[in-house]
Amino acid sequence: MLVDGTQMRPIWFDADLKIAKVIDQRMLPHELVVADLNTVDDVIEAIQEMFVRGAPLIGATGAFGVYTAVLRDEGCNDDRLIAECDRVKAARPTAVNLAWGVERVLGACIDKTDRAARLAAALEEALAVVEEEAENCRLIGEHGLALIREIIKKKGGGPVNILTHCNAGWLACIEYGTATAPMYTAFDKGVDIHVWVDETRPLNQGARLTAWELGKHGIAHTVITDNAGGHLMQHGMVDLVIVGTDRTTWTGDVANKIGTYLKALAAKDNNIPFYVALPSSTIDWEMDNGVADIPIEERDPDEIRYIQGLDDAGNLAKVLVPPPASPCANHAFDVTPARLVTGLITERGVCRASKEGILNLFPERR
Amino acid sequence: MLVDGTQMRPIWFDADLKIAKVIDQRMLPHELVVADLNTVDDVIEAIQEMFVRGAPLIGATGAFGVYTAVLRDEGCNDDRLIAECDRVKAARPTAVNLAWGVERVLGACIDKTDRAARLAAALEEALAVVEEEAENCRLIGEHGLALIREIIKKKGGGPVNILTHCNAGWLACIEYGTATAPMYTAFDKGVDIHVWVDETRPLNQGARLTAWELGKHGIAHTVITDNAGGHLMQHGMVDLVIVGTDRTTWTGDVANKIGTYLKALAAKDNNIPFYVALPSSTIDWEMDNGVADIPIEERDPDEIRYIQGLDDAGNLAKVLVPPPASPCANHAFDVTPARLVTGLITERGVCRASKEGILNLFPERR
Repeated sequence: MLVDGTQMRPIWFDADLKIAKVIDQRMLPHELVVADLNTVDDVIEAIQEMFVRGAPLIGATGAFGVYTAVLRDEGCNDDRLIAECDRVKAARPTAVNLAWGVERVLGACIDKTDRAARLAAALEEALAVVEEEAENCRLIGEHGLALIREIIKKKGGGPVNILTHCNAGWLACIEYGTATAPMYTAFDKGVDIHVWVDETRPLNQGARLTAWELGKHGIAHTVITDNAGGHLMQHGMVDLVIVGTDRTTWTGDVANKIGTYLKALAAKDNNIPFYVALPSSTIDWEMDNGVADIPIEERDPDEIRYIQGLDDAGNLAKVLVPPPASPCANHAFDVTPARLVTGLITERGVCRASKEGILNLFPERR
Repeated sequence: MLVDGTQMRPIWFDADLKIAKVIDQRMLPHELVVADLNTVDDVIEAIQEMFVRGAPLIGATGAFGVYTAVLRDEGCNDDRLIAECDRVKAARPTAVNLAWGVERVLGACIDKTDRAARLAAALEEALAVVEEEAENCRLIGEHGLALIREIIKKKGGGPVNILTHCNAGWLACIEYGTATAPMYTAFDKGVDIHVWVDETRPLNQGARLTAWELGKHGIAHTVITDNAGGHLMQHGMVDLVIVGTDRTTWTGDVANKIGTYLKALAAKDNNIPFYVALPSSTIDWEMDNGVADIPIEERDPDEIRYIQGLDDAGNLAKVLVPPPASPCANHAFDVTPARLVTGLITERGVCRASKEGILNLFPERR
């Protein structure tokens, strides 16, 4: 989408250098830093250290990880390539898209025994992953727009107040984003919306990334603490919740950034529609019980202890909040059970968060 | 309670200087700063700028505000005293204890026409308020301990995992705290507990104050983001929630720090007992519908934008998190409806969060 008038994506292929580049999102919103993915270690670092985050972008970065592995393996050795791909896949356990992106590009190139052919096949497939994700998000935006228009009709006018958690924006995807796609699509068509942006502790992806994205595009928004959504819903200030997901079971359970479950409970309690926007690449077609079975990553407690922002002198700095002696626990995701999800917005349309609803849209999975 | 081996309270009377002193809690946990309440403006600043916070402590500070007004009015003028008391009462609108503390001391001294007698009466009554609050908290601890012991019996052993939001600790009261009173009482009697401390954005009173208090007393605890509680409850890691309250309607609706409602929803969804600890001075005996009628303070959005902590050099500093151009909204409290509250822990015992339950404990209010 637009950043200061320039079209931008969070990952792209630099044809001159023959490498992929990504925005190092850790520095946003205060600095726009670009990182080169020269080696597989760079790719792993970018995923693990969260230069890139968000299911579709992690998938795309994994896809370019395979390309990078081929690029750096002069010998065109299958075992080495598979081992490198395993390392990339292990960089973040919760994101099902990562394995998906890696497997897809690996599958498209491993049968080529000539290195140049393997490299060309890997690049072509990685680029295809990226373009398909962009198109998926565009379609999610179209389908989500219909929901927003319905609310406008019911309310008799705008603005439609949409609450979102974390960043499932274009920074997490390629274009449009997932949760934000209906927002961009609505805004671009002149529909009156306002977005409540959960700051999303501990890493503040809402305050840092979603607010930055929406602001750069000109969309009216307000940053709130993660604690505030329930109160806003009690008082009629939220018409619709849309969030993204890192993994959705084919029964409709939704793993997303920690705190999503609390917003879903509040939406249910106040009779507010709670939608999850996702490309179908995020669906886990084997898992039945998300709460019991989706592994939840525990990250470094220092992500809770230290908060990054701009200091008085205008430099990026971190401050320590709790007493240094106090332990912290950093569960990074939670699972919202399907019973709390009004519907899923996919690239094929909107469906109920149930096996039946999902299989109606994706009958080839029956 | 104990701080580095020394008994401490958050407000006390300095008999030499003839003024009250308070801990300036904004500097905790990194610095322990004491502020003098020399003038009524000092009292108002201490309340408004949150040197002191928490219903019982705000009430006690308001009580000393009347003493300070008498101390500074050489003329012993009734109208002036009443006007000064009105200014103190207006310092924070949500806290019902503030008006209560002020009215009580004003009522005890205004009939004295001699300044020395008025001053003595104001001091005596302010000290009585403080001691009664301390005793109330001790009793809350005793009644809450019984609930913890029940859980231990049911589980067949400890630790009992208790989640709390914000700081309803001794820093918010005089001794023991309200929500923390059962924890201190249990710990002091050798009962095995562990406390999940919500960091409590935007001002991080959980991470800064509750963690500091509990740590100084030696109680096992872990700081978590406000987003994490639902996940912990889904996975059996929380046995009991205890929070404080700024105002409780006599129908059992509970106004407390923003985000409390979300934890109550999660507790309900996971069948976990959700208790609110309060001295009865916090009960509003006239209001029926808390969600509709309790005024919710909107505070400075900069409290969301800037987060305070210790910088690399060991100095207190603030960092800016969201894009400077993004608006922020800072609703400071929310209301948890009585239907989500398992019970109230008061100085007289535990009751259901309903008019009938409350009036059974406080029959004189019928």
